[in-house]
Amino acid sequence: MPPTSEALTAERILEATEEVLRRHGPAKATVVDVARALGVSHGTVYRHFRTKAALREAVTKRWLDRTAEALSGIVDETDRDPETRLRGWLAGLFAAKRRKAGADPELFATYSVLATGLGGVVSDHLAELTGQLTRIIQAGVDTGVFATSDPGTAATAVFQATGRFHDPGYAKEWERPGAQAEFEAVVDLLVRGLRG
Amino acid sequence: MPPTSEALTAERILEATEEVLRRHGPAKATVVDVARALGVSHGTVYRHFRTKAALREAVTKRWLDRTAEALSGIVDETDRDPETRLRGWLAGLFAAKRRKAGADPELFATYSVLATGLGGVVSDHLAELTGQLTRIIQAGVDTGVFATSDPGTAATAVFQATGRFHDPGYAKEWERPGAQAEFEAVVDLLVRGLRG
Repeated sequence: MPPTSEALTAERILEATEEVLRRHGPAKATVVDVARALGVSHGTVYRHFRTKAALREAVTKRWLDRTAEALSGIVDETDRDPETRLRGWLAGLFAAKRRKAGADPELFATYSVLATGLGGVVSDHLAELTGQLTRIIQAGVDTGVFATSDPGTAATAVFQATGRFHDPGYAKEWERPGAQAEFEAVVDLLVRGLRG
Repeated sequence: MPPTSEALTAERILEATEEVLRRHGPAKATVVDVARALGVSHGTVYRHFRTKAALREAVTKRWLDRTAEALSGIVDETDRDPETRLRGWLAGLFAAKRRKAGADPELFATYSVLATGLGGVVSDHLAELTGQLTRIIQAGVDTGVFATSDPGTAATAVFQATGRFHDPGYAKEWERPGAQAEFEAVVDLLVRGLRG
């Protein structure tokens, strides 16, 4: 238990909340559990997050943001050609999801349940990811490797067409032998389609 | 209630089973309900289907086969070019699934539940559909409109990339405004990818 004298930041509360969710699951985890893990009163937690719902939303957003932040680095690798970045981004998303689901299936399932009830947080996350894809495809159009009149629509199509490899509903499929080869066949077809 | 003197075929039992499933749902429907709907004893039903599990498997297979049979007609329209057939086949699958889910959501949900427990029936169905797609793509390769070295792998990629538009887990998305346009954007990209 960390010393209470240490400044209690929102980030420390969210770390503790994730640990409580990992241990108790989404149905049983309470603000009192989070306060106990931090050695503070639940009033102290409520000073940072006004409701249990706000705390759940913030911890889910943090979980989703981690994936988006890791991928944003690939978008900005402007010294690499757009096709390589597109393949790297899609492979990075699949690998991150597979790693999260495989390394800690309970926490992955917990966040999948929480996300289901948080439409706004999820749609912001999907818009962020599709926006990153749009920037890569736009870069490909600018350099003449991709031929599409509407990079935003193409980005949504690529994201939806690869849903099997990032949508949590398919998590059980990701460890099947052949999943990686199937992923690569879909990506190859999409990249050829973008080249036009 | 049909007269009991009429010959009791397996098909009539399956029709009655579907009706019982529609009314009672998968958890409550029993062989006795099916026999009662037909005006026969449950022993008579068991002479055609040895167990309740066998009856459920047969009725689920019949439901899945209806979709596959409707689509097989498109595969055989050899007077139409393969790209048109491919687009028609994918649009036909999406339309059939959307119609089934929209017209009778309870029965659609019931079959989705039944199918989850019948891995073999489902994998046969998916192999049948992917086989149909393979034949269309092979025809495209033969006539020079598609450029792929492995039509079977390409068919699996096309089927998986369009999963959002036929996997029952996405049924709620199918009535959203924009779903049809999103479907068409994915298909356009895949067709361009197959042209190579």
